[in-house]
This record gives sequence, C-alpha cells and structure tokens, in this order.
Amino acid sequence: MTYGTTFPLWRAAAGEHWQDYTRHAFVRQLADGSLPRESFLHYLVQDYVFLVHFSRAWALAVTKAETLDEMRLCADTVQALIGDETRLHVETCAKEGIDEATLFAAPEAPANLAYTRYVLDSGHSGDFLDLLAALAPCVLGYGEIGARLASEAGETPYRHWIDTYASEDYQQVCTAVGALIDGAVARRLGDDPQASPRWPGVCHRFTTATRLEVGFWDMGLAP
Amino acid sequence: MTYGTTFPLWRAAAGEHWQDYTRHAFVRQLADGSLPRESFLHYLVQDYVFLVHFSRAWALAVTKAETLDEMRLCADTVQALIGDETRLHVETCAKEGIDEATLFAAPEAPANLAYTRYVLDSGHSGDFLDLLAALAPCVLGYGEIGARLASEAGETPYRHWIDTYASEDYQQVCTAVGALIDGAVARRLGDDPQASPRWPGVCHRFTTATRLEVGFWDMGLAP
Amino acid sequence: MTYGTTFPLWRAAAGEHWQDYTRHAFVRQLADGSLPRESFLHYLVQDYVFLVHFSRAWALAVTKAETLDEMRLCADTVQALIGDETRLHVETCAKEGIDEATLFAAPEAPANLAYTRYVLDSGHSGDFLDLLAALAPCVLGYGEIGARLASEAGETPYRHWIDTYASEDYQQVCTAVGALIDGAVARRLGDDPQASPRWPGVCHRFTTATRLEVGFWDMGLAP
Amino acid sequence: MTYGTTFPLWRAAAGEHWQDYTRHAFVRQLADGSLPRESFLHYLVQDYVFLVHFSRAWALAVTKAETLDEMRLCADTVQALIGDETRLHVETCAKEGIDEATLFAAPEAPANLAYTRYVLDSGHSGDFLDLLAALAPCVLGYGEIGARLASEAGETPYRHWIDTYASEDYQQVCTAVGALIDGAVARRLGDDPQASPRWPGVCHRFTTATRLEVGFWDMGLAP
Repeated sequence: MTYGTTFPLWRAAAGEHWQDYTRHAFVRQLADGSLPRESFLHYLVQDYVFLVHFSRAWALAVTKAETLDEMRLCADTVQALIGDETRLHVETCAKEGIDEATLFAAPEAPANLAYTRYVLDSGHSGDFLDLLAALAPCVLGYGEIGARLASEAGETPYRHWIDTYASEDYQQVCTAVGALIDGAVARRLGDDPQASPRWPGVCHRFTTATRLEVGFWDMGLAP
Repeated sequence: MTYGTTFPLWRAAAGEHWQDYTRHAFVRQLADGSLPRESFLHYLVQDYVFLVHFSRAWALAVTKAETLDEMRLCADTVQALIGDETRLHVETCAKEGIDEATLFAAPEAPANLAYTRYVLDSGHSGDFLDLLAALAPCVLGYGEIGARLASEAGETPYRHWIDTYASEDYQQVCTAVGALIDGAVARRLGDDPQASPRWPGVCHRFTTATRLEVGFWDMGLAP
Repeated sequence: MTYGTTFPLWRAAAGEHWQDYTRHAFVRQLADGSLPRESFLHYLVQDYVFLVHFSRAWALAVTKAETLDEMRLCADTVQALIGDETRLHVETCAKEGIDEATLFAAPEAPANLAYTRYVLDSGHSGDFLDLLAALAPCVLGYGEIGARLASEAGETPYRHWIDTYASEDYQQVCTAVGALIDGAVARRLGDDPQASPRWPGVCHRFTTATRLEVGFWDMGLAP
Repeated sequence: MTYGTTFPLWRAAAGEHWQDYTRHAFVRQLADGSLPRESFLHYLVQDYVFLVHFSRAWALAVTKAETLDEMRLCADTVQALIGDETRLHVETCAKEGIDEATLFAAPEAPANLAYTRYVLDSGHSGDFLDLLAALAPCVLGYGEIGARLASEAGETPYRHWIDTYASEDYQQVCTAVGALIDGAVARRLGDDPQASPRWPGVCHRFTTATRLEVGFWDMGLAP
C-alpha cells in the first residue's frame, strides 16, 4: 500500500518504529486469533475514546484547511469517524453489555491520551500539514495492517476487525487521505518537499505519532 | 420564533441591536424587492465567504463539545453549511458567471472578516458555550427573518432567498440549534443560568455578534 | 527603516495599501498637530483595547514557536505590550479621568475587533510564520511612522506619541522583531522564500493586516 | 499548604492520586538521597522539556484570560518558567556537559508528552478555568512537596532541588496561583462553585493531571 507519494517517504523516515507499530504482537495476535478477549475489549473501549478525540483532530483540520477540497474531505472524515467507524466498537461492545454512553465516558489510559492530545497539539502549534503528519500513521497504518491481514490472517475471532480496515470503503478513505496529504505537501512545501527546511519536522511528527501507536498496542496487551 | 428558552433571553439582552439586525433596510429591500441586484450579488459573494469561515467555527465547536450529541450536531452543521446552505450561493452566482473557486477566493470585506473572526475567537478564548453564543445570532436570526418574510414579503425577485431560510429544513436546523444551546447552558450554567456570573459575558458575546450582523447588512447595501 | 530582509519584501507586496496606512490623514494630523483631541482620545482608548488583544496574539505565538529564542522573544513582547507600551495610554487617559479598568472594558469598535481577531485567527489557522505576517504591519509600521515623524513633525501636542515609537527602545523592538521574522522565514520557507508556494499566502496576510490598519486610522478619525 | 480555598477542594477530590503523586517513591528518594544520579538526570532533562511545553500552556492562558490581572499573572508565569525555573535544569545539566540546545531538543518520553499535551488540550477544549485546573497539580504540588521536604529531608545530594521549590520565591508563586484560581472560580462558577454543574468536570481535569504527574515520576525512576 502506498496511498500516494508522501506516505512512503514518511514511513521510511519512521524507520523501525513503523515495523514496531504495524508488526506489533497485538496485531499478530489479532491475525492468529490468540489475542485474549479481555485484551481486545480493553483495546476496543480505549479505541472508541481514541476515535472521539481523533475526530476532534479532524474537525480541527477543517478549521485549518486552505481550500474547499481540504475542508470537505476533513469534514467528511469527521462524519465517517463519529458515524461509521465507531459502529464496530458500539456494536461489539453492546453485545458485551457496554452501551455507547459508557464508552464515551470510559477513563482514558495515559497511552491513549498521549496520542490524541499530541495530534491535537500538532494542529494547534503548527499548520494544516503538521496536523496531517500526526494524523497519518493511524489512518494509513490501519489501512496497511488491514490489507495485509486480510490475506495473511488465519482462523480468528477478530475477522470482523480485519475486514473493517481491509474493506474497499476503508481503503478508499486511505487513498483519499493519501491524496489529501500529497496535495497539502505540494501547496506548502513545493515540488521538492524533501528539500524544504520543514521536511525533518513533519517527518518527526509522523514518527512521534507512530511511536505513540506502538504505545497504544502495548496498552491494549496489558490492560 | 423562540427556538427554545435561551434564545429569547439572549435576544432580549441584545435590546435594540436585535431590531437593527432583523429589521435592517437590507432585509426590508429583500422583502419588497427594491434591493438592487448589484447589492444582492455583492452580499451573496461575501456571504459565501462568510459561510466558509462560519463552518470553520462550527468545526471548532466539534473540538470543544463535551457530549456525543453536541459533537454530532456540530459536525452535521458543518456538513450542512459547506454542502446545502452554500448551494443557493453557488447556483445563483453560477448564473451570473461566477464559479465556486472564484467565490472561495473573493476578497473579504472588513465587516465580513470582523464577524467570522470574532466568532472563531469566542471559541478559542472561551468554552463551547461562549462559541455558541457568538454563533447563535446568525443561525437563529436568519431563521426568524426567513419565517417572518415568508408571510410578509410581497412580489420580490428574492423569493428564493426567503424560501431558503423559511423552509422546514432550515427551521428544523434552528430548532435543533436552539435545543443544543439550551442543553449547553444547562450543562455549564445550571438550572438558573441568569444567576450565573457568566451570564452577562455570554449575553455580551451574543450582542456583539448581533452588532456585527448589522455591519454585515450595511456592507451589503454599500458595495 | 528595513528591519531585516523580509519586511521590505512584504511591504512592497502590500503595494499602495502600505502608503494608505503609513501616510494616512490620521498620521499627518498627528504630525502637524491638527488632529482633534477628541479623535486622539477615541483612538487611544481603542488602541488600548487593541493592545490587549494584540498581546494575546503574541502569547499565542509563544505557543506556536519552535525554538527557545522564538519563545523568549514572543514572551518578552507580551510583557512589553501589557507593561510598557500601554503606559502611554494609561497615563494619558488618566489625565482625562479615564482609569485602566475603564479602558480594559471599553466597547470595541468593529474596525478594532476586525484587526485583532484576524491576527489571532492567522495564528490559529496557520503556523508561527502566518501569525508573524499578520503581527508585522502594526509593530513595524508604527516603527516606520515613528521614525519618520520624529524628523518631519512640526509643533504638535502629539509629540509624546511620536517619541514613544521613535524611541531607541521601540526601534530596538522593531529590529528584534524583524530578525525574528527573518529567522522564522528561513526555518520554514528556506533560502529562497519567494520561490516557496507559501509566499503569496504570507504576503496576503501581511497585506490584509495592513488594510485593517487603514480601517483602524479611519475609525480614529471618525469617532 | 492550602494556597487558597479551591486547591484543597480539588486536592481532596483527587483522592489517593494526590498521595500517589506527592508521596511517590521518586520524591522519597529525592528526600533521603537514595535516588540514582542517572534517574535524576533523566528526570531533569525530561522536566526541562516539560517546562517548555508547560510555559506554552501558560501562554495559552494569557490568550484565554478575561481580566488584566489574569493576563499579567499568566504572562509573568511564562517568564518565570522559561527564565528562572529552568535555570536549575540548565545549570545542573551544564555541569554534566549537556547544553541548553540539547535539552530543548531532547526526545520526549511518552509520559512527558501525555501530560503537557493534556494540559494544552484542556485549554483549547475548555475555558480559562479548565486550563487552570490542569495546570494546578504541577505548580501547587511541587510547592507542597518542596515545603514538606524542606523540613523532612535528611542529607541528600538533591538539596538544591528541594530548596528551589521550598524557596520563598516559589512559595509566593504558589500563593499567587492559588489566588488566581480562586478568582477564576468566583468569576465563572460563582459563590458556591461546588454546586455548579461544571464542578465535577474541573475536578476531573485536576485529577487527570495529577495521575499524569504520577506517570511522570514513574518515568523518572525507570529511564
């Protein structure tokens, strides 16, 4: 999965952190079905809260966009996140007797809080591109993981999770976000973005967010 | 039109400024058809740019909401603004040979800029309720004007404008926003909001935004 | 006065708006003493409120700085603004029986509000450099005006105003802010900033803020 | 130490988390001198980066203040933080061959990042009071710890650290911040703040920030 031209460069710049994230033990255990149910539910509750704050960050992106297309794609993403993407969480948790109000009010684990608040601060302290660089690892990493596990995974009770992120719908979101990033880079850093003095900084934001994804999986494994 | 219990109180607190806004010469000329076409188009172009920044302010509200319902209603409003509500502007201007990219890039009149940036700063400097108090005069004032003109207006080439804001769809938006405000007030100021030390401050924001609406109509009349 | 290398480029990009601002009738009347006292006091009260919000914008810059030097210079400017630079206003108004609490609570003219909220939004919607481009016309324009009037002005009751901005202290602030801007440009746009796709955007912010300065003088003349 | 009337209420609301923070093993080892030098230096480097972002949060408070006194006290705190309070860090680290540029660029531990970005988001998502509630545990907790250790601590190489926070200067900062909080509460929640519907929310922010302080000490112990 490349999702455009910028993402592969950022991913390469993240070095081993990208492998630590996308090949994390949590991911392997989702794929082979060995993940304890308790860990999955713990993760799912935290991920619901994550998505609430992540959609706040996409809403912040609407306020920082410079073109109508940028605004609309970000606004659509807010809708997708607090609409469709939480459905998996809400339905799965409902079967376990956890309703959405409980999800919304769940105490945030520090690893969860660290990630979303870092993303939000990337937007507040920087510009639209700084924010996208911090948003990208989650959106595109889940796309990459989903696509890979769809072909690699064996029998697993977590097939529904895999299918969600491997789905054509989600992959199209990733393609659209990849194009949004490429356009945002061109508008702000020009034709040779790697020559821009801002390049190391945006790579750093991507890498930091990737490290915080690793921490999120760690938290999922150790409730 | 009351749109809940808070709006009538804020409207009363705005005193004569509310009349200056909702009974402005621009509004009367929309109703009796005497408004010069040039003024209407000037207004419409500025109002398009206004709606872009106004939808940024509603997106900011998503980042400041405290409940899922607050988030969702604000996110829906962003969609409505940069989707449906600009359709009137885009279609009318298209007939005059002005495309949407041109609208988006139109130079902002100071009276336009003053209003939207004040609203945005109300959000950044205050909380969700401060932001709603600055958003309210536009949303609910247009609902009030539309509903009144629907019954009062005579033959006018601006019937389509009136119908847009008198429509059941738009009136439902106003009812929903009125309920959002009432809920936000209850959550933050309690059962007797007028006794809260914050009451004068939120009324002040509503009044200031109302004054800036008056300036917006003035700008419309004098291109 | 050049105050570094970026300011002359931004000033040139603002074209005639820069002359409209720095050679405004209000400025001429300050210099030749023909400005009505009432206009000056009206201006001074509004300028006090302006400085309050302008110092909020410099505080926002502290939150968006990327180096310790950027942070410290912005923090020093906040102190200078809400400390030293308002002293002229406070002392002059005190002689007229207007105390500082009254100044702080003075109703903001729309032209005043438009300017400061535009600057704040430049920071919230963009990055540190976007914010500096909107802050620059006020800081450096007053430096330029002060330096020019110090040699050109005749007998005028507004000599104290002129001396404030012509003073070595204020000129050093301008030199420091000019250097801050040059450094911020180099860090974000590189060695050939005019070739950056962001260049027109930052020039646009500088020009818009300059136009809003013109509106501020207009407001001063017509209380 | 009470530092006013609000702090003791918030502290009580934080329950055992307050003890976990102020009686943490890291604190005990500072007091009895058993803290490994390596842990102290690790902590000090992270705390330097913490103070950079913490001063950004106080600068954000300047942008959200509603009175001149609120603005000035917050601006003074920014100065104190990036001036005086980092001196201990800079001087101690200089002796170890770590210069200030290196400190500024030190990679942030997730526990560090979680705390400061949570505080910043408390400001962006809420109002001035929400921000103060998240700022308070660090400022006032260090005051409480410093004052207690000044009398309790034995022979320890960390006496300079203890003296910094036990000093009259720092204790006066705490008294001023306590008064700032009391005033901010009165202005926003009224005479009976515990009856306000916002009370649980501000207590929650204080408690969350306290929990993140515990995580910060944990991080200090385990480099």
